[in-house]
Amino acid sequence: MTALVLIIIGGLLSIAYGIWATKSLMAADSGSQRMQEIAAAIREGATAYLKRQYITIAIVGVVIFALVAWLLSPTVAFGFAIGAVLSGAAGFIGMNVSVRANVRTAQAATKSLAGGLELAFKAGAVTGLLVAGLALLGVAVYFTVLTQFMGLAANDRVVVDALVALGFGASLISIFARLGGGIFTKGADVGGDLVGKVEAGIPEDDPRNPATIADNVGDNVGDCAGMAADLFETYAVTAVATMVLAAIFFAGQPILDTIIIYPLAIGAVCVATSIAGTFFVKLGPSQSIMGALYKGLIATGVLSIAAIALVNLVLFGGFGTEFKTNGGVAFTSGDLFACAVLGFVVTALIVVITEYYTGTGKRPVVSIAQASVTGHGTNIIQGLAVSLESTALPTLVIIAGILSTYSLAGLFGIAVAVTAMLSLAGIIVALDAFGPVTDNAGGIAEMSGLPKEVRKATDALDAVGNTTKAVTKGYAIGSAGLGALVLFAAYSEDLKFFSANPTEFPYFKDVVIDFSLSNPYVVVGLLFGGLLPYLFGAMGMMAVGRAASAIVEEVRRQFRENPGIMDYKVKPDYGRAVDMLTKAAIKEMIIPSLLPVLSPVVVYFVIYFVAGGGAAGKSAAFSSVGALLLGVIVTGVFVAISMTSGGGAWDNAKKSFEDGFTDKDGKVHQKGSEAHKASVTGDTVGDPYKDTAGPAVNPMIKITNIVALLLLAILAHH
Amino acid sequence: MTALVLIIIGGLLSIAYGIWATKSLMAADSGSQRMQEIAAAIREGATAYLKRQYITIAIVGVVIFALVAWLLSPTVAFGFAIGAVLSGAAGFIGMNVSVRANVRTAQAATKSLAGGLELAFKAGAVTGLLVAGLALLGVAVYFTVLTQFMGLAANDRVVVDALVALGFGASLISIFARLGGGIFTKGADVGGDLVGKVEAGIPEDDPRNPATIADNVGDNVGDCAGMAADLFETYAVTAVATMVLAAIFFAGQPILDTIIIYPLAIGAVCVATSIAGTFFVKLGPSQSIMGALYKGLIATGVLSIAAIALVNLVLFGGFGTEFKTNGGVAFTSGDLFACAVLGFVVTALIVVITEYYTGTGKRPVVSIAQASVTGHGTNIIQGLAVSLESTALPTLVIIAGILSTYSLAGLFGIAVAVTAMLSLAGIIVALDAFGPVTDNAGGIAEMSGLPKEVRKATDALDAVGNTTKAVTKGYAIGSAGLGALVLFAAYSEDLKFFSANPTEFPYFKDVVIDFSLSNPYVVVGLLFGGLLPYLFGAMGMMAVGRAASAIVEEVRRQFRENPGIMDYKVKPDYGRAVDMLTKAAIKEMIIPSLLPVLSPVVVYFVIYFVAGGGAAGKSAAFSSVGALLLGVIVTGVFVAISMTSGGGAWDNAKKSFEDGFTDKDGKVHQKGSEAHKASVTGDTVGDPYKDTAGPAVNPMIKITNIVALLLLAILAHH
Repeated sequence: MTALVLIIIGGLLSIAYGIWATKSLMAADSGSQRMQEIAAAIREGATAYLKRQYITIAIVGVVIFALVAWLLSPTVAFGFAIGAVLSGAAGFIGMNVSVRANVRTAQAATKSLAGGLELAFKAGAVTGLLVAGLALLGVAVYFTVLTQFMGLAANDRVVVDALVALGFGASLISIFARLGGGIFTKGADVGGDLVGKVEAGIPEDDPRNPATIADNVGDNVGDCAGMAADLFETYAVTAVATMVLAAIFFAGQPILDTIIIYPLAIGAVCVATSIAGTFFVKLGPSQSIMGALYKGLIATGVLSIAAIALVNLVLFGGFGTEFKTNGGVAFTSGDLFACAVLGFVVTALIVVITEYYTGTGKRPVVSIAQASVTGHGTNIIQGLAVSLESTALPTLVIIAGILSTYSLAGLFGIAVAVTAMLSLAGIIVALDAFGPVTDNAGGIAEMSGLPKEVRKATDALDAVGNTTKAVTKGYAIGSAGLGALVLFAAYSEDLKFFSANPTEFPYFKDVVIDFSLSNPYVVVGLLFGGLLPYLFGAMGMMAVGRAASAIVEEVRRQFRENPGIMDYKVKPDYGRAVDMLTKAAIKEMIIPSLLPVLSPVVVYFVIYFVAGGGAAGKSAAFSSVGALLLGVIVTGVFVAISMTSGGGAWDNAKKSFEDGFTDKDGKVHQKGSEAHKASVTGDTVGDPYKDTAGPAVNPMIKITNIVALLLLAILAHH
Repeated sequence: MTALVLIIIGGLLSIAYGIWATKSLMAADSGSQRMQEIAAAIREGATAYLKRQYITIAIVGVVIFALVAWLLSPTVAFGFAIGAVLSGAAGFIGMNVSVRANVRTAQAATKSLAGGLELAFKAGAVTGLLVAGLALLGVAVYFTVLTQFMGLAANDRVVVDALVALGFGASLISIFARLGGGIFTKGADVGGDLVGKVEAGIPEDDPRNPATIADNVGDNVGDCAGMAADLFETYAVTAVATMVLAAIFFAGQPILDTIIIYPLAIGAVCVATSIAGTFFVKLGPSQSIMGALYKGLIATGVLSIAAIALVNLVLFGGFGTEFKTNGGVAFTSGDLFACAVLGFVVTALIVVITEYYTGTGKRPVVSIAQASVTGHGTNIIQGLAVSLESTALPTLVIIAGILSTYSLAGLFGIAVAVTAMLSLAGIIVALDAFGPVTDNAGGIAEMSGLPKEVRKATDALDAVGNTTKAVTKGYAIGSAGLGALVLFAAYSEDLKFFSANPTEFPYFKDVVIDFSLSNPYVVVGLLFGGLLPYLFGAMGMMAVGRAASAIVEEVRRQFRENPGIMDYKVKPDYGRAVDMLTKAAIKEMIIPSLLPVLSPVVVYFVIYFVAGGGAAGKSAAFSSVGALLLGVIVTGVFVAISMTSGGGAWDNAKKSFEDGFTDKDGKVHQKGSEAHKASVTGDTVGDPYKDTAGPAVNPMIKITNIVALLLLAILAHH
């Protein structure tokens, strides 16, 4: 109980930080009348979009809540609600801070780069810490309620199911928010660029472009709220999956009550170290923004290792305590500590690799810039080649992570490593969430006619934001891949447990699970699971294409019907573009989001009938669904990494031309050259790749896994 | 023995057809002096390339031959040599017919479309039937020699190993030929287009473009010789894998000697029906080329069903004979017949689906053409979305194929279905291999200044060739996916057999194989296998990019140093471009080709050491390698289908503009419009997608599988 109280206090720290940081943000100068007008338009658009998105999700959510309450129990359904509401809250609050920090960052950047960075980063840190803190609080508080106040055992099925449902609630919000936000932001970006930059020949963020406010709204609803929901989900689901594994592995052992809160304790201390880390982010004399951010990250990492060592001392009395799972795997508390440290190593490697693949001046980005010299086609060919190649090293890191942590402490070791990885979510999201703030600040500077130097400062911040965005996505997908393996382990262990106790769970009578690759039902499941990220990616890309086309037509219409817009005589109707995109994004997000929710259920019943029903049908169907979960991880990891890294590389290849790109023959290609135009094409393609389809694969993988776990729970319940 | 003799006679039929068809081709009018000159240049370039490619492969081949002879036995190594030599021969003869048929087709097209089709198709049919016939002969003759003359039992390890080695020989040629040919042809195509069409503003196949002969050479070495080697390999490997499965499933049963030649018998009768089918390809009064080709395909399908029924009667005495594998799976000869028919159904569905995704006027191609209206970026976004989406239906067809044939006759049922699918290779390759002939004919017509109508006729043939090329690739990858499952089954059954007989195979003492998805070594293998097609695809795309850049620079140099080229005063130096590409393609094909050859071996030994060596290390390593084989299938199928279908769709979206594309607002976009230019970008991207990286994934999947089988054989031998 004391430990749980301390964990909850750890979570509350993030809220305290959020309040303090927001207050100090709001106290900053919010700029001129014109700047405030623009910021207000962005704020209104973002709030209106999020309201509409949440109403739509709420309708789906209420239906699912009722279903879960009916099929399982109200306690479990309440877990679902907690996950959904807190995930939504993290995104909502983060975005609200972000849309207020943007204008203040623009104003601060008129004075100094350091001032701009400070405000933008503080806004990002609020989002980051709320993501980690609220996820931790949700799981910890509900677990305390269930075990301490309702008196359930830590491994009681109700507790397990309620936690899984909490993860499901978070996943559901996250897939909608990722997709909806992604379609909104990239529809605005692609559409606005096509008709503004290419057709009308006006610069980005020009106030004459009717899509420009929508573009800035998109940064907030996609890159801020969508990303926050995604990481909230990964965090909550991983903590839950690790706890579920602990509940299975240590059922009946006295150590259970302690080891089950180990993941929460790691999370709690890392909230504190992440807060401490934010204070290390300070622009040094070298004026390197990336350097400042890395200082914060490294400080958090080092402090976290010390803090987790402390957790080991408090919970297990040190590093020599021996454990043995019910399956017979033996390891020490020191092994678990080593797994946590390996989780940090995996994070560090993924950060470095992603920076290599997306950073300006590195071989992959330079090769795309070079390929732009010979045209649009070669830019795309090279970009696709880089995107395919960029999957290799992260996959090898994931493989090494699995092998090393598994050899230390079996499946539970993998779970602890992922938990440790995600305990850094607070600081990692902070590094990312300042991106949309600076992007907006640049837009506001442009639209309100601030001096060029301001735009230069915000552009410098924005370029770094591009890389940190890619890094966060690499981190999210890497941890999601590993986290999903933990979920799969929970699925197979659950299944083992149910079929071993057929008297208690009569549905599982005579069910024999054969997860062997030589079982054709497993092969079929792998192929079907492998298909999902492809189909889902196709849907996301097409949705952006349609939304962008609608924006192109709307902007063309406004230019045609109001020629005064181009002479600054008439203000364009920004609201209509925002409104159109809102409708399009909400409409387009529904069907792809339901794909991973329904797939495990449909596959289960189809295979059940194909295999002739009865116990044989159940056995075949459980095997197929299990394989589906791994299939979706296997192709999902590649689809997601290739899209997010490839997109980031295309984006920065375009940025290489902004100060002139020197090709291999020494010729300099300026902004506006043919080579630059080819690089803009690559950037346009990379937009939905990296900001819509790619990152949405991440919640998609986990929602498939968690639905399968719930399906098991429901079948066991009947 | 009688049956084997009949099978060999069936194979010989293809050679008889080849001789007859080639004679009647050579008798046709070979056109004007100028046409013959151009054709000679293409012929020389193609022969020089192939000679160089084969010399390089021969060096690798000799090393492997020696290794196999040393590690296994000369008999097995001889199998390797047969596979390699015959696969090379099929490509070599096919290409030699093709480079002679091109000029005759151009000449015939000056008279009539029907005449052009007849000659081009006849040339394609020679390649197609030689592919099927030589593969059948290679397997059947060597099997006869081993079992009848050397007196070995059909399931003797030497027979099994020798057949696997034969498959390996074919695979090795095929991956080199696919990659080398693919890099050559697309380097020429992309590079030539970039500098000719885009920079110099001269049409495709213009005689002033120094890369134009290289482009025509590329059609022959890539689309003809490369494709022939690929299908030869798929055919041989599938027949071998099915025979290996039969040897395991029916070891010790009297039926073994009959059932093991069932796949060969199916292949033999289908050579005959494919020859018959070629005579149904006749242009009807509607002048529909696709219709004429379909007539041939449908006729072959119907005749083949009847012929396989006959095989059932002769070998098994009808449809009611009951079999039971040593594993206890029971089925009848009627079930096997049904599986063969289902193999045809899968083929038909894949043909129809691929035609839908790549055919002009269908939704996917139209959507890409429509997206071109808003620019290069949206063309690519939509093309990528279509390429991702195009994987869904073929995968579902493969899944349905697995489920239905498995429920009829277990793993052997799947194997028979794939065998039946591939028995149609003769006619399917015929439908495809006429493409490069007509493509070349168009080039010759353009370069020799034949009247516009001739080019129109060859263009009409060429457009159909685009779709049939995509169809063949869909067929190849679909059958490769299923065939690889059969190979995986052979791997796991072999492994089961070895570890069950540790006294005979002491290396396998105490080895326990756990292919369960909950085994982390399996997960690691899946991820590593999944990575291979991505890395391989990246290498292929980059190789084309590099080759194309080299060509761009060479053509620019020639234009600069010889300004007379543009005024037709000086003949460009065609030979240099051919020579450069030859060197580039040969150099670039080596490393990617070795990736799948070495991966299973490296993974085996790395995992062996990571897992601590000994029996535990072996067990872990065998599990990882097995999972690697499935991982490479799971992502390979998606990578290959998305690349080949997406590329075909981009190509035909471009073709939609040639007679003017009417967009959704009714505006017509002509050739040369901005929308057309955007569609050319898509086509350029699609080129290496569909003709280099995508199709090469197919042999890559199988080579990984077959190397794993050989590795097993070698370990068992020691």
